[in-house]
Amino acid sequence: MSADAAIPDPALVALRDALRRFAAERDWDPFHSPKNLAAALSVEAAELLEHFQWLTEDASRNLAPEARAAVAEEMADVLLYLVRLADKLDVDLAAAAVAKIDRNAQKYPVEKSRGSSRKYDQL
Amino acid sequence: MSADAAIPDPALVALRDALRRFAAERDWDPFHSPKNLAAALSVEAAELLEHFQWLTEDASRNLAPEARAAVAEEMADVLLYLVRLADKLDVDLAAAAVAKIDRNAQKYPVEKSRGSSRKYDQL
Amino acid sequence: MSADAAIPDPALVALRDALRRFAAERDWDPFHSPKNLAAALSVEAAELLEHFQWLTEDASRNLAPEARAAVAEEMADVLLYLVRLADKLDVDLAAAAVAKIDRNAQKYPVEKSRGSSRKYDQL
Amino acid sequence: MSADAAIPDPALVALRDALRRFAAERDWDPFHSPKNLAAALSVEAAELLEHFQWLTEDASRNLAPEARAAVAEEMADVLLYLVRLADKLDVDLAAAAVAKIDRNAQKYPVEKSRGSSRKYDQL
Repeated sequence: MSADAAIPDPALVALRDALRRFAAERDWDPFHSPKNLAAALSVEAAELLEHFQWLTEDASRNLAPEARAAVAEEMADVLLYLVRLADKLDVDLAAAAVAKIDRNAQKYPVEKSRGSSRKYDQL
Repeated sequence: MSADAAIPDPALVALRDALRRFAAERDWDPFHSPKNLAAALSVEAAELLEHFQWLTEDASRNLAPEARAAVAEEMADVLLYLVRLADKLDVDLAAAAVAKIDRNAQKYPVEKSRGSSRKYDQL
Repeated sequence: MSADAAIPDPALVALRDALRRFAAERDWDPFHSPKNLAAALSVEAAELLEHFQWLTEDASRNLAPEARAAVAEEMADVLLYLVRLADKLDVDLAAAAVAKIDRNAQKYPVEKSRGSSRKYDQL
Repeated sequence: MSADAAIPDPALVALRDALRRFAAERDWDPFHSPKNLAAALSVEAAELLEHFQWLTEDASRNLAPEARAAVAEEMADVLLYLVRLADKLDVDLAAAAVAKIDRNAQKYPVEKSRGSSRKYDQL
């Protein structure tokens, strides 16, 4: 059930390096405390959500091309802050995600959670 | 200044596939509309922020190991929902992030934005 | 179309005073910078949203009594941080809300916005 | 330690009524499911946080007049969605807030929480 933790992630490493250069060139490191990056990340997540807030679920499955492009740009913003925060905290994002899938598999056993959106402590 | 868009991202693909299996085994696809996933993503981003809300910026740079592990787990949650949403919307996350770095480089020219946290429309 | 700005708000004043006492008794004022309070407010707003993230819109209109009570408690958290932030920034919340309704009436003229969820700059 | 639950809140009632008229005139009620309103509220809370994300805590205590006015407008947006959601769910906001202060007083006893930002389950 788990993804293979040994798979390398050159794309995430390349993003990390590009963001390091971007911040260094602009002297932005003083602003990039983990606290500030976490705030910025949650602001971007909300900008992503804003695109969906008045849509029905069905409409959200059928975005027009321009809406989809705008949504993709907000998703990029979230990923960029996430990669930047991981760099500052020395977290291996891909490994953390693989580990979390394994933990979720234990919290949500297939038999108990099938077809239910209940939280693990209410199964 | 840009990351190389051609770099493959096996880690993100592996996560996507693991999440597909996870949802399929539990019949969770009906819950995973883009609208719902965007809401869940922003909730996880807030849970990440919660760890930092009363910390000073300096303290956020020096997390104790347990706090750092808890933060890494919230970051994993954000990445998992982001990968899942990208799958549902058929968005190439890594390519979108590379494109966004390029756009940001245009919005924030080095000379104008050095040492400033002002938004691009206020430079 | 506007609410009456002159209406007093004894409930909001009483909450402000209760929160002042609460923080003073616990020496919490140093934590309550506007930046931190804004972060805490957005975390509480996400905890509110969490209750709805997997529900259909119809289900969200028909909460069971326990779910409704839990939701009311999260709404209270949002209001408390909002009142506390308003106190720290010396903002008259009720007056600001009345003024915003008037601005919204101009941004969303009845004829143009009827039955549409489009944003004012896309009408 | 508690605020007086019996205090009436004419300002909140006036806002509720103004928002009812506003939505009715624009046929917006179909969009205003509790789920959608909770999402919109959290988006506004993030827009509020955005003003503070790169500021130091000290700078957040000393906003320039234009920044303070912009922040007050975002706070108004949060209050308006909160009042609208309370109306849809038939929640008495002021009473819920008073009850929450009392619960917090029990969760955070003065002696145990003085000068500490730790969560109640970690006191």
